[in-house]
Amino acid sequence: MENVTIRMLAEKLQLSTATISKALNNSHEISEETRKRVQELAKELNYVPNPYASSLRKKSSKTIAVVIPEVADSFFAEAINGIEAVAKEKGYHVLIYLTHENSQQEQAILNDFQSGRVDGILISVTMETAASEHGLAHLSKELPIVFFDRVCEELPTARVTTNDKEAAFIATRHLIERGCRNIGLLAASQQLSIIRQRISGYEKALKEAGLPLSPNAVTYYTNDTVGNYKKVCETLRQHRFDGIIATTEKLATSVYEACETLGIRMPDELKVVGFSNLSTARFLQPSLTTVAQPAFEMGKTAATLLFRSLKNNHFPLAHQQVEIPSQLVIRQSTAV
Amino acid sequence: MENVTIRMLAEKLQLSTATISKALNNSHEISEETRKRVQELAKELNYVPNPYASSLRKKSSKTIAVVIPEVADSFFAEAINGIEAVAKEKGYHVLIYLTHENSQQEQAILNDFQSGRVDGILISVTMETAASEHGLAHLSKELPIVFFDRVCEELPTARVTTNDKEAAFIATRHLIERGCRNIGLLAASQQLSIIRQRISGYEKALKEAGLPLSPNAVTYYTNDTVGNYKKVCETLRQHRFDGIIATTEKLATSVYEACETLGIRMPDELKVVGFSNLSTARFLQPSLTTVAQPAFEMGKTAATLLFRSLKNNHFPLAHQQVEIPSQLVIRQSTAV
Repeated sequence: MENVTIRMLAEKLQLSTATISKALNNSHEISEETRKRVQELAKELNYVPNPYASSLRKKSSKTIAVVIPEVADSFFAEAINGIEAVAKEKGYHVLIYLTHENSQQEQAILNDFQSGRVDGILISVTMETAASEHGLAHLSKELPIVFFDRVCEELPTARVTTNDKEAAFIATRHLIERGCRNIGLLAASQQLSIIRQRISGYEKALKEAGLPLSPNAVTYYTNDTVGNYKKVCETLRQHRFDGIIATTEKLATSVYEACETLGIRMPDELKVVGFSNLSTARFLQPSLTTVAQPAFEMGKTAATLLFRSLKNNHFPLAHQQVEIPSQLVIRQSTAV
Repeated sequence: MENVTIRMLAEKLQLSTATISKALNNSHEISEETRKRVQELAKELNYVPNPYASSLRKKSSKTIAVVIPEVADSFFAEAINGIEAVAKEKGYHVLIYLTHENSQQEQAILNDFQSGRVDGILISVTMETAASEHGLAHLSKELPIVFFDRVCEELPTARVTTNDKEAAFIATRHLIERGCRNIGLLAASQQLSIIRQRISGYEKALKEAGLPLSPNAVTYYTNDTVGNYKKVCETLRQHRFDGIIATTEKLATSVYEACETLGIRMPDELKVVGFSNLSTARFLQPSLTTVAQPAFEMGKTAATLLFRSLKNNHFPLAHQQVEIPSQLVIRQSTAV
């Protein structure tokens, strides 16, 4: 298929390239008749505008970026669906960029945006991302940015989160009500504000129940699945917890694996709550009590805020902070 | 942050914009000394090239597209990881586009590529995609395209697949060996060649065992999760199968759901094999016997072929057909 250019249309119609370009963009400088002739020929020859050239002119790519750590997590898979539902309605393309929990890779992706590849950004930062050393502050002056779930609290832009502290408080209180007295928390990261929130909700529940805050009850993990599994085994062997809060889906899966290896019976010897949107949670053995996050709604809300800002430069993104509550879904992993 | 342009560099150094541009691109027309002065200033001022302008010149975006139906499926999540491992090494960005199993949306995405947004495409087509009505044939003349998993068999370009027919044959034979005599197959689509391959392997195994091919033993599903669940219930109620091959992860999950609703006991009353890379398969109740696809390897191989073609225009993509075998992992859902 030969590439049809504006120049070719101009030659065929004996018009200037400027006229063709204006006619294709529905300019009022061009007569109705000429506009029609040009657009009909363009359609007939299957003319496709070059997005790079037209982006230079219009400064719009009709594209938004979604920057997330990974897709092998039900939360992000569902959030993307929420984002795409809105973008599709607005006629925008969605480009998904994965950082694989690597803040350097995240930085390289963000650098790539400085020069106009996308019109706006929805981002959930990596476990490593520290706001201070981050290019997001610069970038947010050039492009609208909306954080969802994993935010940089220091950055003055829109944030869509869930009630992480409250949800962890409720989950921990549930374990206490089910008889747990020695509850451990598996933390996915030291950096992430959402994880700090969850730890704080967990500590609040222990305090309210008059339970001690033992110094090693919170253990920290990385993005290394095999390493994490070994560390979960070690933790469960050492501490003889009777309850566990797993702050991510993958850590919850590692608990099942470790219990199998160590012969720990769930829920009799260990009760478990996982932060997870896993569709198979209810079919696990035992079925998993989860903190289910409103992933689709969070993605949809974040995208809606971004498009408001794209439509209206003066929309005060920095003042938008939306919190959508999670839900505790009680199943057999916390049964008495 | 002010945008540093080539013009600004030219003014500061009292050189022409053409000289600046050539110096930044390491042109041999420019003296070593000038090149150094320009590049040092560019670095100092944090100059970022405009990708649109530079794409117009170089006709390369250093970007590849991955076009897939969805990410809420372990196969695609793992395949992306394989693709990104290769792309990262080559210094390319990966843009992920989701079609949500909608061939019109797929077509809109492909149209967007006609004008140079990406250098090459890795694609796994939708359940609806019919090769005949598809823009891929046109596009493959302009851009290198590599299919992985879900291919259009009619199109002369590289394909990375798994042994779908053989894997379904082995899975069905396994059910027969475990005593099943009335085996149903849940087909995710009528269009997809990989599903036709799986049906054909299933039929071959029945035939070899001298079992009848009953006309309604293969049922077809769409992308509607709720509708599929209802249809699975209906199918299991009507046919009293003693064995099921679920050709996708989501259909396997629907079988668990339907069995719960209908009070069918797995594996005693119904044995199930699912095509799935679900990391929780071994923790399901009962643990799920799976056909595990080499998703990471398939993604990695597809990306490697694409980069070979990007490096060398004459690399015969059309002759590349790689098949990487799947593995049957036997668990409790097919226990006797």
